[in-house]
Amino acid sequence: MAKRSYPLSRVYGLLEPGPVLLLTTAHEGQANVMAMSWHTMLEFEPPLVGCVVSSRDFSFAALKATRQCVLNIPTAELVDQVVGCGNTSGRRVDKFKRFGLTPLPASSVAAPLVAECYANLECRVADTRLVNRYNFFVLEVQQAWVDAACKVPRTLHHRGRGVFSVAGETIRLPSRMK
Amino acid sequence: MAKRSYPLSRVYGLLEPGPVLLLTTAHEGQANVMAMSWHTMLEFEPPLVGCVVSSRDFSFAALKATRQCVLNIPTAELVDQVVGCGNTSGRRVDKFKRFGLTPLPASSVAAPLVAECYANLECRVADTRLVNRYNFFVLEVQQAWVDAACKVPRTLHHRGRGVFSVAGETIRLPSRMK
Repeated sequence: MAKRSYPLSRVYGLLEPGPVLLLTTAHEGQANVMAMSWHTMLEFEPPLVGCVVSSRDFSFAALKATRQCVLNIPTAELVDQVVGCGNTSGRRVDKFKRFGLTPLPASSVAAPLVAECYANLECRVADTRLVNRYNFFVLEVQQAWVDAACKVPRTLHHRGRGVFSVAGETIRLPSRMK
Repeated sequence: MAKRSYPLSRVYGLLEPGPVLLLTTAHEGQANVMAMSWHTMLEFEPPLVGCVVSSRDFSFAALKATRQCVLNIPTAELVDQVVGCGNTSGRRVDKFKRFGLTPLPASSVAAPLVAECYANLECRVADTRLVNRYNFFVLEVQQAWVDAACKVPRTLHHRGRGVFSVAGETIRLPSRMK
């Protein structure tokens, strides 16, 4: 899919609805990808994102050491790959090969973009003060990419234990909220 | 609607999909309600939730002073009220009256439950270390209530500027993820 650079000021609209993400890292010659739902916007611009990456996850050491990652946003077509990534560990499996995901070079970080995801956010770790207590990393989005053809993304929203809602009907109302 | 007490160990499944919330507070004899989407789970049990309440919001002072709030989860039927709450300030308006929302007493905090919401999470502030920098409060859920009749909640997910996706189709897959 053809992706275009996306304004950083509008990144909040991609993450605020709470989609499941695929977080990618690269460390010591090995790229990895994990499924992640515990994230929130913290600031509009530059976009700051807080997220939990457990110290039990293989990605934790890579994120802590390299301070770089990509947040990739999958749509419903990728639900099998998302659950596959959630059920396996990069300690034992090359998840890109296993699940047929295509790593592409990012522009500003060493972690790869997942080509099949409709949006990709290149991030650097900006604050680690809550890592010890909550495994909570503050990321700053450096560069965003979005599939220009995907106007209404059917994002996945995890309700626990492999149950997902897919983003459905759209409602537009006059709002003074950002 | 008839609500039942909900196990704290399963609260993550209510918040992880990223629904818009109505956050209620009560301070100096005045209850207030605001719309909020910047939140994430931080821990399963006891359930810890991180959320951003801007220092520009009227609720900020109440939350900081009382260290109590309720996270109420609306469904799509309440979208007009949600946007109404987002477009007005408790400084000037009694939003419960204006938008026909019913405050009910909570069991463990002074902030009210919003009767019309399908779930209500009574919370206390557990950590304020990131409030100065990011307006980020860590909440511990004390008591949860859910409408037993609402099996597949049509939650609202804000994409920015008054555009919402409603939770649609459900997908269930075998998962080792919580």
